[in-house]
Amino acid sequence: MRKTYDIETLIQNFKNKDKVALAKLITLVENEPDKALEIFKHFDNSDKDSYIIGITGSPGVGKSTLINILAKQLLDEGKSVGVISVDPSSPFSGGAFLGDRVRMTEVSLDPNIFIRSLASRGHGGGISRAVFDISLLYEAFGMDVIIIETVGVGQSEVDIYNLTYTTVVIMVPGYGDSIQIQKAGIIEVGDIYVVNKKDLGGEDIVVQLEMMLDDATVQTGWRPPALMTNSISGEGIDKLVEKILEHKNHLELSEALKKKKKNRFEYKIRNLLTYKVGKVLESLISEEEREKISNSILEGGKYKIYDLVHDLFRNIKFEKKKESSK
Amino acid sequence: MRKTYDIETLIQNFKNKDKVALAKLITLVENEPDKALEIFKHFDNSDKDSYIIGITGSPGVGKSTLINILAKQLLDEGKSVGVISVDPSSPFSGGAFLGDRVRMTEVSLDPNIFIRSLASRGHGGGISRAVFDISLLYEAFGMDVIIIETVGVGQSEVDIYNLTYTTVVIMVPGYGDSIQIQKAGIIEVGDIYVVNKKDLGGEDIVVQLEMMLDDATVQTGWRPPALMTNSISGEGIDKLVEKILEHKNHLELSEALKKKKKNRFEYKIRNLLTYKVGKVLESLISEEEREKISNSILEGGKYKIYDLVHDLFRNIKFEKKKESSK
Repeated sequence: MRKTYDIETLIQNFKNKDKVALAKLITLVENEPDKALEIFKHFDNSDKDSYIIGITGSPGVGKSTLINILAKQLLDEGKSVGVISVDPSSPFSGGAFLGDRVRMTEVSLDPNIFIRSLASRGHGGGISRAVFDISLLYEAFGMDVIIIETVGVGQSEVDIYNLTYTTVVIMVPGYGDSIQIQKAGIIEVGDIYVVNKKDLGGEDIVVQLEMMLDDATVQTGWRPPALMTNSISGEGIDKLVEKILEHKNHLELSEALKKKKKNRFEYKIRNLLTYKVGKVLESLISEEEREKISNSILEGGKYKIYDLVHDLFRNIKFEKKKESSK
Repeated sequence: MRKTYDIETLIQNFKNKDKVALAKLITLVENEPDKALEIFKHFDNSDKDSYIIGITGSPGVGKSTLINILAKQLLDEGKSVGVISVDPSSPFSGGAFLGDRVRMTEVSLDPNIFIRSLASRGHGGGISRAVFDISLLYEAFGMDVIIIETVGVGQSEVDIYNLTYTTVVIMVPGYGDSIQIQKAGIIEVGDIYVVNKKDLGGEDIVVQLEMMLDDATVQTGWRPPALMTNSISGEGIDKLVEKILEHKNHLELSEALKKKKKNRFEYKIRNLLTYKVGKVLESLISEEEREKISNSILEGGKYKIYDLVHDLFRNIKFEKKKESSK
């Protein structure tokens, strides 16, 4: 049987800065999306916002090590930090290969940091659903900075771009000429570019990045810098922190931060609506109906798939009720 | 003004194996998801299925070159081949950086091949929506083999896994120890593993792959092989083709192919439903309502987001009509 938590008690402890309560609430929203409504009812309006940084890059570029040092520096400055690390893992296991223990060991004992690893798949409503919910819990907990780590080339940058204020894209030398950089689909997504493992070279890739960043249309007035770091020795991390702060200041001065915050919540609103409708559909369309359709498709009727779904949908009526007086 | 095509004429030409008509229909479904219903109405049931191969791996591992040789070999055997290559690119430009011209030049003049590059973002209903629709057009065109190329580490393998029958995961040497392989989230997703660019070494990574594949639970009775190739010289490609055929035979003999096909269509049905629901929501929830919510969130009410969306949703009534006599 599933252990039930008393949410009221958890919230009380959470408000008293109890990290165990934070951990349990994260587990709750991670596994049961519908619990978010119940949990966040307990929080009042707040003027305090966390600053949200995204760190993205292919597996193996050294994101975790870099976040480790970055977090250490923030902690030394008296900031509190929440980390959400999205570990890709098997779609079948549903769990992260490398848990909190393997990574981030250096800083993880500090009382002002909390680290959570997520599997990248198998979350009800998708990974960005869980990442948003956890980031909102970190905000309610009073974290000054939230760092979201994703492996992402491919479609995931779009997500991180929607959830963060400053996006840092990490690359490594010896792995890309200019076409590789383009293929990675990252220009115009990053606010700061980092070539890590500079002991392996990397001047070439920085030069190519700089050229491409010059060419890229800069709509916000921010020209993304390209830095070199060595996350093992810590070289270049000062500069990275400096650039993150510069970008933060830029966003605040240009009102772009407000726009990014708005975008973050609008993105979540769309996600929530889609999730809720999905649940309604599940209840309205029976397993039998689905089975009937997929059988008829498999029996040679594959070109009818659009038609069949269209019919299924035609039987569902959507209606807007008059504005309730609630 | 947008050029309008006469769909009836296009279909007629398409059925006469006109590649220009194929290209135009692909453009149609790519840009206007709703056109799929209209287009596929013109196709009868069919017993002929294409065999769908997914090739996935990080940018720079040599997927395109490898597909080039693979396609050449299939063409030499008298097979027709449709390629869908998902190029990640800027979320703003919406277009692929590297079009059909830069890649695949060696085989692209052969009359039995058709190659289409997609940007990885900005497709109505998502990239997997477009990839499915195009693959169905290839099937209707009579392609023996469909090859879908994606850059994927991160969440995109889940997509390719749902859309293909044999998934080939490409890696390169010098980029990963065993933890990197795990982090890439690929074990249990691939049916065949390829370490490309064997001129750069790679024995180590193959050994580590083999160990991990031994450990992985094999539910289907297929133990994924790990091969080494050199896509420039062509070394190892024979073996890859052989393994793809072996996997295909395995799927057919074990009835797993039928299951994979079923999964492919069920995945599409879910996608179609979600897409249609999104359109309904857009029509039911006004810009004004959305704006009102996001303003109230920005004015300090962020913890009310779940509540506000919940209320919005409560005003929409979903109802299933009695089975129509259509």
